[in-house]
Amino acid sequence: MKILEERIIKDGIVKEGNVLKVDSFLNHQMDVELFHEMGMEWKRLFADKPINKILTIEASGIGIACVAAECFHVPVVFAKKAQSINLDGEMYTSKVESFTKKKVYDIIVSKKFLGPDDHILIIDDFLANGCAVMGLIDLINASGATLEGVGIAIEKGFQKGGAEIRAKGIPLASLAIVDSMDAATGKITFGTR
Amino acid sequence: MKILEERIIKDGIVKEGNVLKVDSFLNHQMDVELFHEMGMEWKRLFADKPINKILTIEASGIGIACVAAECFHVPVVFAKKAQSINLDGEMYTSKVESFTKKKVYDIIVSKKFLGPDDHILIIDDFLANGCAVMGLIDLINASGATLEGVGIAIEKGFQKGGAEIRAKGIPLASLAIVDSMDAATGKITFGTR
Repeated sequence: MKILEERIIKDGIVKEGNVLKVDSFLNHQMDVELFHEMGMEWKRLFADKPINKILTIEASGIGIACVAAECFHVPVVFAKKAQSINLDGEMYTSKVESFTKKKVYDIIVSKKFLGPDDHILIIDDFLANGCAVMGLIDLINASGATLEGVGIAIEKGFQKGGAEIRAKGIPLASLAIVDSMDAATGKITFGTR
Repeated sequence: MKILEERIIKDGIVKEGNVLKVDSFLNHQMDVELFHEMGMEWKRLFADKPINKILTIEASGIGIACVAAECFHVPVVFAKKAQSINLDGEMYTSKVESFTKKKVYDIIVSKKFLGPDDHILIIDDFLANGCAVMGLIDLINASGATLEGVGIAIEKGFQKGGAEIRAKGIPLASLAIVDSMDAATGKITFGTR
């Protein structure tokens, strides 16, 4: 998606350790008008799918998912990363290892909000090793819902997540795929799949 | 706001300990079309304010804030609850005590995204003791930004947060104010301020 790639080149910052900072528009400060354009693009790419719910994971996926959900006219469910007393006992759980935070955590979704009648689009801001998406797929599989596809803002094409999801035959729409980045020069190259 | 009060009566569940579960439409599963109506109401209520940014706190405020931000045509910044290696060293910090999670945590916003030129609307899903909003106000004050108002989906009118914010002269728009709720009967009464 050209406007997202252009925005990454303009405002993204490459840091050592394969970190791409896009916190000025994607995951700390959030450009909701860009999110709307991204939502319309996913709506176009998944137009033939009977999506009735979007699933994401807290925290930085929530904003993108909610704005995209307005394009689909469906509700969002977000997986929580820790148990709260406001959650009922009945929930689906999985485990996720965070690339940026270097730890393993539980993710949970109430059984009330995922079930066999649901046709799910997963939305998230980043895809790297794919751990968050795999955790969300676990929850969907446990619930009997149908996974219709995965929409990602930025895929790190040099990490394994995208290839693993495509190998499962799951439709994956990454709006920008970063094939390489160089912290010394700041250069970012994009690819397609 | 009548449609929000009606939705709370229809789908909200009162639990012991003054807990109001609205996880089917507000803070776990999220009805983004309701969020749009809420955003339009805040836009109407704060029409005379030169708001250029919305500030919220992860996780459940983010979805409401992003959909509302589309109505205001401004970006969102969300305060994070824990330090990530993706955040630069330069940040504003405060402390918040969570009513639902019974713990104290740090909140942080990058100094890049709050400054003296900003006119901020705080948005959050719940207002009870007001700790989260007070923490966000600390960050705004530290940055030199101007706080234009606070928009809350559901205020627990029997807890102290709303009164404390109004006592400071800060414009507060709570779209539903719960004055009492009874876990035995499920009855919820609303008020105005």
